[in-house]
Amino acid sequence: MNQDLQYKDCIEACLQCMNACNVCYVSSLKEYELAMLRECIRLDRECADICDFAAQSMIRQSPFVQEICELCVKACEACADECGKHEHQHCKDCAEACRRCADACRHMLTAA
Amino acid sequence: MNQDLQYKDCIEACLQCMNACNVCYVSSLKEYELAMLRECIRLDRECADICDFAAQSMIRQSPFVQEICELCVKACEACADECGKHEHQHCKDCAEACRRCADACRHMLTAA
Amino acid sequence: MNQDLQYKDCIEACLQCMNACNVCYVSSLKEYELAMLRECIRLDRECADICDFAAQSMIRQSPFVQEICELCVKACEACADECGKHEHQHCKDCAEACRRCADACRHMLTAA
Amino acid sequence: MNQDLQYKDCIEACLQCMNACNVCYVSSLKEYELAMLRECIRLDRECADICDFAAQSMIRQSPFVQEICELCVKACEACADECGKHEHQHCKDCAEACRRCADACRHMLTAA
Repeated sequence: MNQDLQYKDCIEACLQCMNACNVCYVSSLKEYELAMLRECIRLDRECADICDFAAQSMIRQSPFVQEICELCVKACEACADECGKHEHQHCKDCAEACRRCADACRHMLTAA
Repeated sequence: MNQDLQYKDCIEACLQCMNACNVCYVSSLKEYELAMLRECIRLDRECADICDFAAQSMIRQSPFVQEICELCVKACEACADECGKHEHQHCKDCAEACRRCADACRHMLTAA
Repeated sequence: MNQDLQYKDCIEACLQCMNACNVCYVSSLKEYELAMLRECIRLDRECADICDFAAQSMIRQSPFVQEICELCVKACEACADECGKHEHQHCKDCAEACRRCADACRHMLTAA
Repeated sequence: MNQDLQYKDCIEACLQCMNACNVCYVSSLKEYELAMLRECIRLDRECADICDFAAQSMIRQSPFVQEICELCVKACEACADECGKHEHQHCKDCAEACRRCADACRHMLTAA
């Protein structure tokens, strides 16, 4: 990976978060008590797509990296808040990945 | 199409713009004078991906529609500025689609 | 839209299907009887993403158009079969859009 | 990352390949001798998008994993063949990542 080192940690955090959100999404859809997970499922998908988009934008050094990472912070915070309400391990893992990703994006934005 | 009518025109403009940007992208890659189109090719891809993302977000009534459409305005304006410098018909068509899309996003954002 | 006319109808069908699948996805997540819609929600997302991918591939005249449209046929058929089991209007609309899209892809593939 | 272990290596290879393709794409667009890199730029984008799609499909255990990974093998082989013609380090790195990804997909497909 030879993209600018300033982005390296943030790209990694975004891809880890995309992964955790997608795992939480499919796992939530299989849970017995599904109704309480509506918003979790919905935000998992939004956050996964936005994290993936953010990672690719940084890899390509898009001129819109800043705006996309600001968006990513909001999506990660919303998804972490929602997943943090649930006791499923996939929700806890997702919330943690979202918080780490939001932190990584904020750190990248202040360093930029 | 039964999504909220407030988004209908904007979704349509985003998909038209995604189309025009992708057409401009592949057409530019075939042009004889390629070097002057570097930035055009790069922005076409960024703008196509962002417009597609914006359209899908509106269709799904994403909680991040506003941020994504603000991002879309910036991408469309940058792509329109760059494509507007070139005489190729695909560049002119793309610049026009980008300006229409930026307008549609701005209109949606003020109406929201 | 000035891409090759051979793709025009198929691109339109894919984007209509992406739209219907995303509408069905968000609408299903709001339904009272959620458990019976697990597979519908899951396939809506897969099919929406694949249709969008197929549309963009045709617009860009990707060298992989054929393989992607064959994949799109399978996704549309699976989603149509699942949505066809449910009485919600968004499921019926989605199933119809999926069948139209599968037909358009098959027609494009035989004409290619 | 708690998705099925059968996919773990393949997901990692797809994300590494998506990264290498996007790096090669932006780097190629900056090269002085651009004309010889037209097909490289085009295939980098196609392959990056398909690898990303394949990774996400495996993470979500999509019902279409097999078809998507078969598509991914073709895209990686085409991109490796093209990038393998060029002496730029980003092309060599990309070709290598594409070959590793094609191998990982083939291995996953035979193990499945």
